[in-house]
Amino acid sequence: MNGSTALLTDHYELTMIQAALASGHADRPCVFEAFARRLPDGRRYGVVAGTGRILEALRDFRFGEDELAFLRERQVVDGRTLGWLADYRFSGDVWGYAEGEVYFPGSPLLVVESTFAEGVVLETLVLSILNHDSAVASAASRMTAAAGDRPCIEMGSRRTHEESAVAAARAAYIAGFGSTSNLEAGRRHGIPTAGTAAHSYTLLHDAERDAFANQLASLGPGTTLLVDTYDVSGAVEVAVELAGPRLGSVRLDSGDLVGQAHEVRAQLDRLGATGTRIVVTSDLDEHAIAALQAAPVDRYGVGTSVVTGSGHPAAGMVYKLVSRQGSAGVMEGVAKASKDKASVGGRKFALRRRRPDGVAQAEIIGIDERPQDDGDDRELLVRLIKRGQVVAPTDAPSAREHHAMARAELPSRALRLSHGDPAIPTTYLDDWS
Amino acid sequence: MNGSTALLTDHYELTMIQAALASGHADRPCVFEAFARRLPDGRRYGVVAGTGRILEALRDFRFGEDELAFLRERQVVDGRTLGWLADYRFSGDVWGYAEGEVYFPGSPLLVVESTFAEGVVLETLVLSILNHDSAVASAASRMTAAAGDRPCIEMGSRRTHEESAVAAARAAYIAGFGSTSNLEAGRRHGIPTAGTAAHSYTLLHDAERDAFANQLASLGPGTTLLVDTYDVSGAVEVAVELAGPRLGSVRLDSGDLVGQAHEVRAQLDRLGATGTRIVVTSDLDEHAIAALQAAPVDRYGVGTSVVTGSGHPAAGMVYKLVSRQGSAGVMEGVAKASKDKASVGGRKFALRRRRPDGVAQAEIIGIDERPQDDGDDRELLVRLIKRGQVVAPTDAPSAREHHAMARAELPSRALRLSHGDPAIPTTYLDDWS
Repeated sequence: MNGSTALLTDHYELTMIQAALASGHADRPCVFEAFARRLPDGRRYGVVAGTGRILEALRDFRFGEDELAFLRERQVVDGRTLGWLADYRFSGDVWGYAEGEVYFPGSPLLVVESTFAEGVVLETLVLSILNHDSAVASAASRMTAAAGDRPCIEMGSRRTHEESAVAAARAAYIAGFGSTSNLEAGRRHGIPTAGTAAHSYTLLHDAERDAFANQLASLGPGTTLLVDTYDVSGAVEVAVELAGPRLGSVRLDSGDLVGQAHEVRAQLDRLGATGTRIVVTSDLDEHAIAALQAAPVDRYGVGTSVVTGSGHPAAGMVYKLVSRQGSAGVMEGVAKASKDKASVGGRKFALRRRRPDGVAQAEIIGIDERPQDDGDDRELLVRLIKRGQVVAPTDAPSAREHHAMARAELPSRALRLSHGDPAIPTTYLDDWS
Repeated sequence: MNGSTALLTDHYELTMIQAALASGHADRPCVFEAFARRLPDGRRYGVVAGTGRILEALRDFRFGEDELAFLRERQVVDGRTLGWLADYRFSGDVWGYAEGEVYFPGSPLLVVESTFAEGVVLETLVLSILNHDSAVASAASRMTAAAGDRPCIEMGSRRTHEESAVAAARAAYIAGFGSTSNLEAGRRHGIPTAGTAAHSYTLLHDAERDAFANQLASLGPGTTLLVDTYDVSGAVEVAVELAGPRLGSVRLDSGDLVGQAHEVRAQLDRLGATGTRIVVTSDLDEHAIAALQAAPVDRYGVGTSVVTGSGHPAAGMVYKLVSRQGSAGVMEGVAKASKDKASVGGRKFALRRRRPDGVAQAEIIGIDERPQDDGDDRELLVRLIKRGQVVAPTDAPSAREHHAMARAELPSRALRLSHGDPAIPTTYLDDWS
């Protein structure tokens, strides 16, 4: 992606800046926080993803000539505001949960300390990235947990916007997927890419046997042959006849996957292809993967469900002003009182309370004060930006490692797929101490 | 968006091309079609969107030095295939439903006539765009139908990937939304942009009264004041006191919208602000909009539900090889026999059968032959690309106009929000004639 990210912004952020500039409130020191009021229905934990992408997008958040010309022509804001936008550089501080961290209701995922105008203008871009990437990572983590040691391949590019696809591949990788079919994700984020074989390739040939022979000749016996275009058992027979026992994999993409996996495994073994793997790919989600745990399957290819957050395509995060300097010159917690959308004012700090054996016990949130570490706890907020400069890693492998660590700390009930409460309670310091 | 779109592609498309090039099958004349096997659960019609974006993305579908270097380094395909990709230019023909058209199960939304290799490599990009944009437009059309003459504003940018947001704004506009909050959609696609006011802006001030006064001073009395930060009726009182009866709008973003709309309307009228409009924005979807039909509401701001397809974030379209030249040199229909995923082979043609009064009656699909126009029918496939050159409009306003026309032709049952069958049946020519 080239170019400015500055117009990936809602119209009203700029008009609010105009009004605040005019009244002299634009430079008031403020704290904005991103958090989720709740987890998606019945989920036991969420996974933060997108943080690295936010930090990179902020570097390109510049109102250049093209952006300003558009705003001027459409009369979105006045000349003074255009001048302010032209000079815009985020110069504040940002703390946040490390990318890949698990989260719970109220966890302060991002804490932005800046002037009002510098912070408010980031709302849309920050939430777009966080809501999308975290929705995918949260679903993907349930899938990799259900898959255990069997690798998951992300194959959902065709089921989501072409750029979401790249971000989804990255988020799924962070949550433990082993590879993606998306080539741009390989190039842009260094995610391993993988592919199998297509029905159209088989149908292109006069006979399935020709398709298999040609694929093996070009791609070698380690390739994956797609065996469900016509008749599965006939295809497996031909596949092993042509490839020999060194055939890499066969792919099943339809029908009763549990029953077929057993049949195909038995057939492959009978034919001597004991090392040939079985890849399954038909409309899998975390529940289908769990149902295949006892079946002889080696890899899961997951599409629609992972890129669309398995029923929850947006993570429900909001970005709220929680504190600002008042006319008396001191910082004051603020919160709207709106029915059904009330929030908690004040700058948050967060700690994961752990038992001496390292198992997570509670999410401790301090308001305007740092919770005390009991000795086995883990600080959750890390500094991401210091006076406008990015000071944290933005790469996917670091986040993937962090996720594996953070998920392993959770009590075992966290990994149940059935509906339940959050795996650990969120406790505000006042209640805890 | 700058740069190449060529790597927005699944790994296996390229390995299939390698195998087809090696065996001499890559140049076989082929027909690929994009269609949906079914509508999302209970929907009565779908809306095709993304066609214009596909045509533009195809222009940038080039394997340049950067793309080739990545593929070489990762050893995705062999040298011969890299050479073929370097020269890639789509040189075939494409027909499709005009953007904004309504569709039904089996409607041939895109018909690609090219060699195997030229057509197969477009699968991922075509489906990403079509599945995303059509999911949004299909949901958005139900919302604008429920809203009637009241304008809908698309405000969901923060609930979806930052680039999906731009495409979603475009798709919603095609389906009848009047404007979007997304500035980049304004710049890139010419969609009108709109904004209201933010809670953070009110909270920035020591008092709500100061916030309103400053906003009015900077943005004028025609602005929209957000009245639910603390107490709605107190806020409305202050708003009219400060702005006078010429206050543009007030916005409600929480609580019981139906009840509040009635109360606020009565209060505004009592205060003499009879021309002040009421904008509502809290978690609206088509059902919430329908429930507000009798309430005194002037505008709907819709977020999460429109950009995530109101429960169906991917339209379920597939891209299948349906016909190819065999070794005998003639075109032959092909289809996989896979359990639960069978498709219909052969090149499709499509006609919307209409009664003499213009009301749509059936989707007539001809296989390898053009259905006969009964005199009142409408041809559905228009030529989009002729020998590699785009020959159809790609802009959103044309598609918006087409959608309004196509939806108006549907029988009235099509616009019911309750679960039901497709509004008109899909009939294959064999059965019809």
